[in-house]
Amino acid sequence: MQHYPESIRALIRSFAKLPGVGEKTAERLAMHVLKRPLNEAEALAHSIMDVKQKVRLCQKCYGLSDAELCHICRDSSRMASLVCVVEQPADMIAIEKSGAFRGTYHILGGTLLPMEGIGPQDLRIRELFDRIASGEVKEIILATGTGVEGESTAAYIAQQLAGKGVVVSRIASGVPVGGDLKYIDKMTLKCALDGRHAL
Amino acid sequence: MQHYPESIRALIRSFAKLPGVGEKTAERLAMHVLKRPLNEAEALAHSIMDVKQKVRLCQKCYGLSDAELCHICRDSSRMASLVCVVEQPADMIAIEKSGAFRGTYHILGGTLLPMEGIGPQDLRIRELFDRIASGEVKEIILATGTGVEGESTAAYIAQQLAGKGVVVSRIASGVPVGGDLKYIDKMTLKCALDGRHAL
Repeated sequence: MQHYPESIRALIRSFAKLPGVGEKTAERLAMHVLKRPLNEAEALAHSIMDVKQKVRLCQKCYGLSDAELCHICRDSSRMASLVCVVEQPADMIAIEKSGAFRGTYHILGGTLLPMEGIGPQDLRIRELFDRIASGEVKEIILATGTGVEGESTAAYIAQQLAGKGVVVSRIASGVPVGGDLKYIDKMTLKCALDGRHAL
Repeated sequence: MQHYPESIRALIRSFAKLPGVGEKTAERLAMHVLKRPLNEAEALAHSIMDVKQKVRLCQKCYGLSDAELCHICRDSSRMASLVCVVEQPADMIAIEKSGAFRGTYHILGGTLLPMEGIGPQDLRIRELFDRIASGEVKEIILATGTGVEGESTAAYIAQQLAGKGVVVSRIASGVPVGGDLKYIDKMTLKCALDGRHAL
C-alpha cells in the first residue's frame, strides 16, 4: 500500500472501512475509480454525500425518507388505516420486498430491553399512540421480531392498546415456507402447531 | 431497491458499478454509509474526488503520482542509473511489493501490438530514450510481460538500445518459486532449462 501516492492510499483506507472490503479489494476498487471517467467517480462521491445530507426519518412512520414524509406515507393508494409496527427500517424494507403488504408502517427504532435500561420511552411508542389518537388508524399488525425481545415488545404494545378501539394482531410464527421439519427448532415447531389453522 | 428513498437508490446504483459489487452488496454498503458518522462518509467521498483530481503520471517514469515526480523518482536513495521498464503502473506496484528492486522505473503504457496498429510511437519509448540521452541511465532491465507481446516489445527496445552505451537485460523466465514441475507449461520449462545457471 505504501507503494501508491498518498491520495490513492487515502482512498484505499476509506474503501477498506466498508463492510466486507479487505485491503486487497479496497486496492482494486481504488484502481477502478482511478480508471473510470471523472463523471462516474463524481456520481459516487456525490451520492455518498447526498445520502448523508438528505436521508432523514419520515415524520409519520420514522422510516427512511428524503422528504418530510416517506414515499409510502405519501402514497394515497396505501391503506393509512392499517399500520404494520416493526423494529427497524430494514424490517420495513424486507416486508416491502415481499410485496405482501399494502398498508403503512410504524418503526419503533428497537425493542424493549429492560436489562439495558431501554424502556417504552426510548422507542417510538408514544408516537404510535399519537397516530392512533388522531383517529386514522383502525388496525395494527405487530411485526416485531419473533425472539424474546420482539415478543415482549409486541406483548407490551398489545396490552397498552387494549380498549383503544383498534384491531391488534401479531404476525404468525411457524415453519418457513420450503422448510424441512426435521431441521426446525422445537420452539418454532411448537408455534407452528399452536398456530395451526383449519383447512 | 424501489423501496428506498431516491438518494439511497442513487447510491446503491453507484456502488453497484464497482467491480465485484452486485446489487445486494451495494445495498449493504449504502446502508453502512447511512449508519456511519458524517465525517467517515465525507472522507470516502473526498478521497474519491481527490484521486481523480490529484493523481497524474510522473513526468519522469510515467508511474502514478500526485506530484510532478512520483515518490520513487523523488527518492534520492533509489538508483536513478538503473531503470526497470514495465508495461503498466500495476507492474511497477507488483515489483515494489516484492521489495527486490532499488532502482527506478519507466512505464511504457502498453506493448507493441502491430495487428492493432499500436507501434513504438504509441508507447513511451521516445521518453525512455530521452532519459538515456540525458546520461543519467546506465542500466536497463526490460520487465515487460513474458507473453508474445511483452517479449517482442522487449526485443524491439533491446535492438533500439544497441550501441547506446547502456547495459540491457531481460527478467528471467522460469518455474515460479514453489511451483510443481508437473503442472508447468512446456514453454516455461524450456525457458527454465535454457536459462539454467551454474551452482
